[in-house]
Amino acid sequence: MSPAQAAAFRALDPRTGTELPGAFTVTTAAELEAMARAAKAAFLPYSKLGGARRAEFLERSAANLEAHAAAVVERAMAESGLPEARLQGEVGRTCGQLRMFARLIADDAWLDARFDVGDPARQPAPKPEVRSFKRPLGPVAVFGASNFPLAFSVAGGDTASALAAGCPVIAKAHPSHPGTSRLVADLVIEAARASGMPEGVFGLVQEPGFEMGQALVLRPEIKAVGFTGSRAGGEALMRLAASRPEPIPVYAEMGSVNPVFVLAGALATRGEEIARGLFASFTLGVGQFCTNPGVTLVPEGAAGDALRDRLAELTLSSEAGVMLNRAVCERYGSGLTELAAAGGRQVARGAERDWAAAGTPTLWEADIRAALANERLVSEVFGPSTLLLRYRTPAELVEFAAGMEGQLTATLQAEPAEVAEHTALLDTLAERAGRVILNQYPTGVEVGHAMVHGGPYPATSDGRSTSVGTHAIDRFTRLVAYQNFPPELLPAPLR
Amino acid sequence: MSPAQAAAFRALDPRTGTELPGAFTVTTAAELEAMARAAKAAFLPYSKLGGARRAEFLERSAANLEAHAAAVVERAMAESGLPEARLQGEVGRTCGQLRMFARLIADDAWLDARFDVGDPARQPAPKPEVRSFKRPLGPVAVFGASNFPLAFSVAGGDTASALAAGCPVIAKAHPSHPGTSRLVADLVIEAARASGMPEGVFGLVQEPGFEMGQALVLRPEIKAVGFTGSRAGGEALMRLAASRPEPIPVYAEMGSVNPVFVLAGALATRGEEIARGLFASFTLGVGQFCTNPGVTLVPEGAAGDALRDRLAELTLSSEAGVMLNRAVCERYGSGLTELAAAGGRQVARGAERDWAAAGTPTLWEADIRAALANERLVSEVFGPSTLLLRYRTPAELVEFAAGMEGQLTATLQAEPAEVAEHTALLDTLAERAGRVILNQYPTGVEVGHAMVHGGPYPATSDGRSTSVGTHAIDRFTRLVAYQNFPPELLPAPLR
Repeated sequence: MSPAQAAAFRALDPRTGTELPGAFTVTTAAELEAMARAAKAAFLPYSKLGGARRAEFLERSAANLEAHAAAVVERAMAESGLPEARLQGEVGRTCGQLRMFARLIADDAWLDARFDVGDPARQPAPKPEVRSFKRPLGPVAVFGASNFPLAFSVAGGDTASALAAGCPVIAKAHPSHPGTSRLVADLVIEAARASGMPEGVFGLVQEPGFEMGQALVLRPEIKAVGFTGSRAGGEALMRLAASRPEPIPVYAEMGSVNPVFVLAGALATRGEEIARGLFASFTLGVGQFCTNPGVTLVPEGAAGDALRDRLAELTLSSEAGVMLNRAVCERYGSGLTELAAAGGRQVARGAERDWAAAGTPTLWEADIRAALANERLVSEVFGPSTLLLRYRTPAELVEFAAGMEGQLTATLQAEPAEVAEHTALLDTLAERAGRVILNQYPTGVEVGHAMVHGGPYPATSDGRSTSVGTHAIDRFTRLVAYQNFPPELLPAPLR
Repeated sequence: MSPAQAAAFRALDPRTGTELPGAFTVTTAAELEAMARAAKAAFLPYSKLGGARRAEFLERSAANLEAHAAAVVERAMAESGLPEARLQGEVGRTCGQLRMFARLIADDAWLDARFDVGDPARQPAPKPEVRSFKRPLGPVAVFGASNFPLAFSVAGGDTASALAAGCPVIAKAHPSHPGTSRLVADLVIEAARASGMPEGVFGLVQEPGFEMGQALVLRPEIKAVGFTGSRAGGEALMRLAASRPEPIPVYAEMGSVNPVFVLAGALATRGEEIARGLFASFTLGVGQFCTNPGVTLVPEGAAGDALRDRLAELTLSSEAGVMLNRAVCERYGSGLTELAAAGGRQVARGAERDWAAAGTPTLWEADIRAALANERLVSEVFGPSTLLLRYRTPAELVEFAAGMEGQLTATLQAEPAEVAEHTALLDTLAERAGRVILNQYPTGVEVGHAMVHGGPYPATSDGRSTSVGTHAIDRFTRLVAYQNFPPELLPAPLR
């Protein structure tokens, strides 16, 4: 290849395994450096624009995405195998997130400006006047997820919250959907220009592999990383970020098994409803959600057997769906092989389909004692499966919950009286998960002020915060104080 | 040594270098494990007590410390070489911090409880009700600082904020002041018992070295680390924490050079005042503050020469003070040797004294171009010295500020009109420091709601927060959401 001839790559159709139209230029190291320098140059002017101006940019990005939703959805369908309605929903979610952050920053309340009045006459030393607020960290690298080509991708939640905070963003597109990523990035760049944002406020890195993404995390201009994806990917970025001369925060959302605890009273009262709700949740989107319920705790005995048998019926009557790409499909297959090797028993399996990347719903069973003895039985399997763990006593549930890894969610199916009888379990779930759910299911993460999409390690790299909802903006800020400044010399929000 | 005979160590008097009375038992690995298990067992009941009960514990700890201040101050004087008035001030600061956090948690406002109302009729999917708040992380390890035997030590700011948040604390005493640490720990433990806190809510680790401190960070029960000390120490803890199967946050405050930028107008108007203020700041407490101004930027020319000469006079008429311990004293000496080797020119030196750990004020000078070419010239030297960097143009100041490492503080000595003319400098300082000060000095960190004692790496390991002031409580919390719970089943603050 001559230097004049840029490397390119193509997307694959996960239904057929064949190449889709369109070649995408691989970002070079020189382009990456230029993008990072431009982001750094943009940082100060962008952060000083103020929330109202940045809100215009976010609003315009949302409007651009809505105006071009048909083309974006069409391309995303081809690249991800996800159905049209789901992707239209993702357009709505993505625009909703951009607008939520635009509203949040339209006034300065989110900056938590504080003012400690001074007292020059205080003894033994004068008390200084101190004011502080949150300011943006600097340019942020955002790694798009495979399973949300819009809402957790180029213009997804991490990008929206970082841009809202005042941080330029360099998005690393997921290699499965380069066309969708390019379309969305161009809409954001157009919005930045039209609303008068500094050049370099947004950039896109494309490549079929990992090399440029790693180089991006090592660029000194980058001050934080947002990531949604696998544990291996997230941990690799954590190690890279910690190895820098200046370590930076990594917000990696790495998924979890999202256990569902079915108590006897709920099962007796609503067995059929639980079977249908759980089946819908673990097969939704071909099981490709980080909140997919991969483990379900079910009582031993006849009622638990009946739930298992009903779930087996539903699974047997299901069929394979198209998965996001061949790698995800292969990992689902090897995850099931490991689950069987660890002692899981396959109860039922749906009908196969002939997609290049096909994911067939499967139902598994094991005794909870086996899971307590071998944690590999409860590793995440990304795809449409759940493992029923059969338990005998409430104490076993508490033991399981206390020993489980950090989770994005934990769900209780319980009658109200049962919840009150299981305070130790509920306390333990709140300690081990970012979100505790009663009598609903973990899939579906509502965007709002109270939502927490986070959780103790290894659900995320940094369980103190959330990647969904308005709290997420705080991840891209730090505190700064001004001491003894006359108001007219202070940044506007501190006057 | 027979197993029945516990190892012990003694404190040294930094004035004489001789052993002080009292032998302190070295914590064993078995004791450490028992302490960590007890802290874990205490976590849930302690966190569920509610803020008002925890506030009682903090108030009683403060009252105990005040009631025994004379004995604590006497021992701290002997162990640290710090004067009585300073240590009495530290008692006040320490009690003030405990009471500030007690007031903060007396009601639940700090928990940032949020409530997103549900809508079962929403299309295409019902909107769930979600509530969230902050909850404590779990047991916290707090490493006491050498230079604040009370306010940043066993019952200092990290301990107060972690206990307030609902986290049990295991304090690792600084080996320089084991007697002070034991006295204070016993007062906290007595307060815990008297106010009915769970056993294990507070523990103390003592040793002459580092081994048990490292083991503490590796204990799986520990969920966060607070540290104030050297960069080498802080970075060692960061590596340890990152190497755990479950990485945990480390809040290490590692110090900085706290540059003071003297502009020409301020120098012309207030030269004598600046000389006296700067001299007082860099020699305060024998220069043993993390906010010590180690670098001062001074214009070339006659006015700058006059400032240097006046500072030289003040330095020449000063004399050595007792430093905290021999290791700090030796590091001060080797730091000055490195400063000279890197091209610093010693301008003046105070009178020597015959203490075992003596720190003599020194004044240094170099050209700012030398510092721009060799960053070793502006490494932190912990002790009573400052390096005058002579500059010619405002552009040199911006270049220096943009290139400097992250700082706890940056100070501007400037007339108001000059500040307005130096917006690029001010913007850069706010980007590189946690606190920007106008026409005061960096030493003295006011405790309050707005204070930020933090800053970009390497000033701290995690520049997003602060170790002083009410914001500090957030460091020991994470967000958790409850979805679809009837109010009566929720934790009290979310009802």
